[in-house]
Amino acid sequence: MKILEWTDKGIRLLDQVRLPKEEIFILCDTVDKICEAIRSLRIRGAPSLGVASAYAVLLGATKIETTDSVRFLAELKVVADTVMATRPTAVNLFWAANEMLLAAQEASPGGRNAMLAALHDRATTIESDNKDRHIKLSEAGAALVEPGASILHHCNTGPLATHERGSALGVIYTAHMHEKDIHVFVDETRPLLQGARLTCWELDQWGVPYTLITDGMAGHFMRAGKIDMAVVGADRIAANGDTANKIGTYTAAVLAAHHGIPFYVAAPLTTVDFSLASGDGIPIEQRDPAEVRGYGDTVWAPPEAPVANPAFDVTPAELIAGIITEAGVARPDYTESLAAQRDQQTGMGA
Amino acid sequence: MKILEWTDKGIRLLDQVRLPKEEIFILCDTVDKICEAIRSLRIRGAPSLGVASAYAVLLGATKIETTDSVRFLAELKVVADTVMATRPTAVNLFWAANEMLLAAQEASPGGRNAMLAALHDRATTIESDNKDRHIKLSEAGAALVEPGASILHHCNTGPLATHERGSALGVIYTAHMHEKDIHVFVDETRPLLQGARLTCWELDQWGVPYTLITDGMAGHFMRAGKIDMAVVGADRIAANGDTANKIGTYTAAVLAAHHGIPFYVAAPLTTVDFSLASGDGIPIEQRDPAEVRGYGDTVWAPPEAPVANPAFDVTPAELIAGIITEAGVARPDYTESLAAQRDQQTGMGA
Repeated sequence: MKILEWTDKGIRLLDQVRLPKEEIFILCDTVDKICEAIRSLRIRGAPSLGVASAYAVLLGATKIETTDSVRFLAELKVVADTVMATRPTAVNLFWAANEMLLAAQEASPGGRNAMLAALHDRATTIESDNKDRHIKLSEAGAALVEPGASILHHCNTGPLATHERGSALGVIYTAHMHEKDIHVFVDETRPLLQGARLTCWELDQWGVPYTLITDGMAGHFMRAGKIDMAVVGADRIAANGDTANKIGTYTAAVLAAHHGIPFYVAAPLTTVDFSLASGDGIPIEQRDPAEVRGYGDTVWAPPEAPVANPAFDVTPAELIAGIITEAGVARPDYTESLAAQRDQQTGMGA
Repeated sequence: MKILEWTDKGIRLLDQVRLPKEEIFILCDTVDKICEAIRSLRIRGAPSLGVASAYAVLLGATKIETTDSVRFLAELKVVADTVMATRPTAVNLFWAANEMLLAAQEASPGGRNAMLAALHDRATTIESDNKDRHIKLSEAGAALVEPGASILHHCNTGPLATHERGSALGVIYTAHMHEKDIHVFVDETRPLLQGARLTCWELDQWGVPYTLITDGMAGHFMRAGKIDMAVVGADRIAANGDTANKIGTYTAAVLAAHHGIPFYVAAPLTTVDFSLASGDGIPIEQRDPAEVRGYGDTVWAPPEAPVANPAFDVTPAELIAGIITEAGVARPDYTESLAAQRDQQTGMGA
């Protein structure tokens, strides 16, 4: 099942808000519609947002009528800005939109059609690169998994979040394919329950054994010796390894450290923001208080209860045993190891 | 508002399952009905369960028709066993039922009416003692609260849970009454959301400022320096201070330790089980998987998702800065300090 697909009518995507109850695809044939889908989490997860961002810019480009290259690029910039304004934390959204702007700029001497062709090429390359990256990082991570391991996972990081294979769940799925006899403890991941809704759904499809728990139970099961490792995804990783990920990740990392359990982050290098020296500079999205007062139409708190709703937290590098990318497993000091991975990938390294 | 009351028709109690949406009182005029109310959490919280347990035994006693004292005591034992079989973790339930059996036994030479009178006396004494204990421990705990403190709280420990004033929330309310300018971070407390539903409701009634958060957010706000102390209640405390409390408490305690934030337990000495040397012996109630797959009629996980649902966890004494009781603030070593508090209370001490 392809969770997001470019068609001649626009972007077709699986509405993740309705999962696991309904598997419904929607067509986003305008930039406004794909931006609404991103804001309301119909499509989500940093790598999936990268792919969605590329196709959103392509979609916008197809609507630009001018044949003047300078004007085309200016209008395309407005499209990219609109896409980038949807959500602030996942860096892949910005990375992909900027890649698209670069592609158009490079092709601009050839005029409108050349730019459209280049944009289409760049978007499909971003998509296929993204697939390669996740398969590679999943294999690299699976090699870390001990046979019989019980693994804590937070939020959702499978194909729904990454477009292909998965990041943390890619590691888990790949270890399962390699018959490592693993078991997953699935944090439900309040407030939006991506663990309970989406991760359980993906693990069911793969046949990976799991136990769904509330986020507050993780400590209990670690203390009982039931959890051997933890692996999570990332929405943005600073150059020093500090990692922004779904709210609750930091709590899981502190618990893992307290119990001497290795805590891994799995993400493609497109999720690393080398422009940020540390996690202090990562903007944290604040979402609607209603998400905390209940779920969907069900409200259990007093309707006016004062609420905080940061969508992400930052786990400092010192709590992370390794960052699993398509270039292998980076170890501390991450400022050095992540830069080395990047340089190796771009051929700039030794 | 009296959340549980003995009337000539039986036990009248506020149905906490319906809070905060509806404030509905129900009448339990049979032992079966009060046992159902306990099992389904219409009445809950260790100290409230103690009071409910005493009146449940009294209610059962009023239905015993025999005038033979030996037979009366035997039938009363069956009643007490039924009440004690409702939930396994909160020790107050057992303590109060056993207190009632003792009262009947002591009065048994006087026959049925003497036993009924003694049972009524003991139940009202348990209720009024419980009130005294909570007011005292609330004052003792409030003295620990620094002006302007921001306090993390888990589950619900106000009058709904304790019958009077509160334990951890009693400390918080008392600090608020003493104009300490406090703020509360309210863990929503999945799966049954006692924080979101009941603690917000109680804090609203008192006018204490608070912020409702999901359980996974506590680490984020500790790291941001927004939380100065944590205080929770207890369902059972072992002689060495190990504390069973609502699932998620241990996670909060580990987070507090990691951030150097003092973590307090507030509970009356009736919650201490001196027969258990450590928390290893505390039975942990396992509840319905449906509670984790959703909330009430709302199901968000796959309907067959494998689930773990321990209702409590055990926080080891070494993570607890102090145990606040009606006899003051016990400090480590708790085996000594809690025993000294008990001996002082019963006049056995120095």
